[in-house]
Amino acid sequence: MTGFAATPEPPYWAVIFTSRRTSGDRGYAAMADQMERLASEQAGFLGIESARSDDGLGITVSYWRDQASIASWKAEARHMAAQHLGVEGWYEHYEVRVAKVERAYAGPADR
Amino acid sequence: MTGFAATPEPPYWAVIFTSRRTSGDRGYAAMADQMERLASEQAGFLGIESARSDDGLGITVSYWRDQASIASWKAEARHMAAQHLGVEGWYEHYEVRVAKVERAYAGPADR
Repeated sequence: MTGFAATPEPPYWAVIFTSRRTSGDRGYAAMADQMERLASEQAGFLGIESARSDDGLGITVSYWRDQASIASWKAEARHMAAQHLGVEGWYEHYEVRVAKVERAYAGPADR
Repeated sequence: MTGFAATPEPPYWAVIFTSRRTSGDRGYAAMADQMERLASEQAGFLGIESARSDDGLGITVSYWRDQASIASWKAEARHMAAQHLGVEGWYEHYEVRVAKVERAYAGPADR
C-alpha cells in the first residue's frame, strides 16, 4: 500500500529522523526528493516512510539491512549535501535515532 | 522543543507505528488523545512523537525504557480499546515495528 515500506522479516535497522522545519522552501523539497532517490540506490536500503504535519513536525523512517548500509548512506548524504545542496537552514531542530528492529506486525487483523 | 520526545541516552526502545487512516473521524481524535494520555501514565514511558500528512499517512513513534514496558502498554491499550472505544475502522492499514534504539544525536550542529 502506498507510503509503506515493504520491509523483510526482522531483524533489520531503522533510522528515525524527527524534524521541525523552518519556514519557506529554499530548495528543501528538491533536496528531500534527491536524498530519497539517493537512499533508494544504496546497497542495503529496504524502504522509507515519511509524514509531515501542517504544524511543521515531520518524521521520516528509513529502513536498512545492517549498520554498514547506514554508515555508507550517511557518508554519501553528507557528501551530496556539501557538494550540491548548500547548507543548513532547513531545520529548526532534528533528532536522529538509529534502532534495530526486532519485531514487526501489520494490521488491521480482520481485514 | 515542541513535538520532540526528551529521551535519555540509548539504549531504550521505540515502537514505530505507521498508518493510513480511513476517512471521517468517527471518534478517532478522541481515541488518539486518550491513548496518548494512557501511554504517558505507563511505567517506562519515555516520550512520543507523531506526524500525519494531509494524504492520510501518519507515523507515531513512542519511546520506552524496556520491552516489559511495551508489553504492559500493549495490554492496557488493547483493554481500553475493547472496553471503551469500540472497534476497528480507523485504519486502512498499519505497520508496527518494535526496535531497540542504539544511537541518537540531535542537530543542526551549529545552532
